[in-house]
Amino acid sequence: MTSARPFLLAAAILTASTGFAAAQDQFAGALKARQGQFRNLAFNLGILGSMAKGEVDYDAATAQEAADNLVTVTGISQNLQWPEGSDNGSIDGTRALPDIFTNMDDFRTKWSDLRLKAEEMQAVAGTGQEALGPALGGVGGACSACHDMYRASDS
Amino acid sequence: MTSARPFLLAAAILTASTGFAAAQDQFAGALKARQGQFRNLAFNLGILGSMAKGEVDYDAATAQEAADNLVTVTGISQNLQWPEGSDNGSIDGTRALPDIFTNMDDFRTKWSDLRLKAEEMQAVAGTGQEALGPALGGVGGACSACHDMYRASDS
Repeated sequence: MTSARPFLLAAAILTASTGFAAAQDQFAGALKARQGQFRNLAFNLGILGSMAKGEVDYDAATAQEAADNLVTVTGISQNLQWPEGSDNGSIDGTRALPDIFTNMDDFRTKWSDLRLKAEEMQAVAGTGQEALGPALGGVGGACSACHDMYRASDS
Repeated sequence: MTSARPFLLAAAILTASTGFAAAQDQFAGALKARQGQFRNLAFNLGILGSMAKGEVDYDAATAQEAADNLVTVTGISQNLQWPEGSDNGSIDGTRALPDIFTNMDDFRTKWSDLRLKAEEMQAVAGTGQEALGPALGGVGGACSACHDMYRASDS
């Protein structure tokens, strides 16, 4: 995507010229932003998961709202918050692999796939408890497809 | 809003019956979710702010994308991640004041106001650097309107 290039380029140049500590500072906001979105996803997935497992009573409106939030959060663009040089080989506090930046199109496609699965959840979340498990399977599969490729297994 | 009530009620009962430590655990996910969204907002506002101040060269596509993200994030509903009992008098790691839960309608209105200001930013972010400052003033005003009422001044 062309839109993020000037920003990414500036970030990459800064990293090359000033090293690790500067990169850590430079990318602190991007790290918080993308980890923030994942935490928001995890929270809403947790609500749906608890209902799917029967740990919490199913409530259609709550399930719907959690599913709606998944769709909303997966609408955040994945350009600005993944500046080149913000991987686990360059800064601390991230499990993001450098491969992200050599496969950015695939990385974004995987994010789009997650959105599609979130939309499938959104379509059924309010229809009954038994719909949650299969839909969560779809969302979880999309999560794993990206984690398997682009996230280090250790933190 | 009725949709979040069963969840909120269950959370409130759990807090009353098992105390502070359980509340801390119980609300950890909600805390991360809402703080995650704020960090995502802060990151995108930072990009726009840097351009507004001239610290970073204006780039229309980047500004537009940051503004789009603001609108997206302000689409997250503010019910599930604000369970009653998750204020700074009940758990650590939050500046959220208990008044949120006695003024929930006003709290949600202030979030809606933020979305309106984000949409005003979205409408002008790609039109030129000089549009960013005034639009950021609007967004910042909406942030402050809520912080002044519902966030403790110390962390």
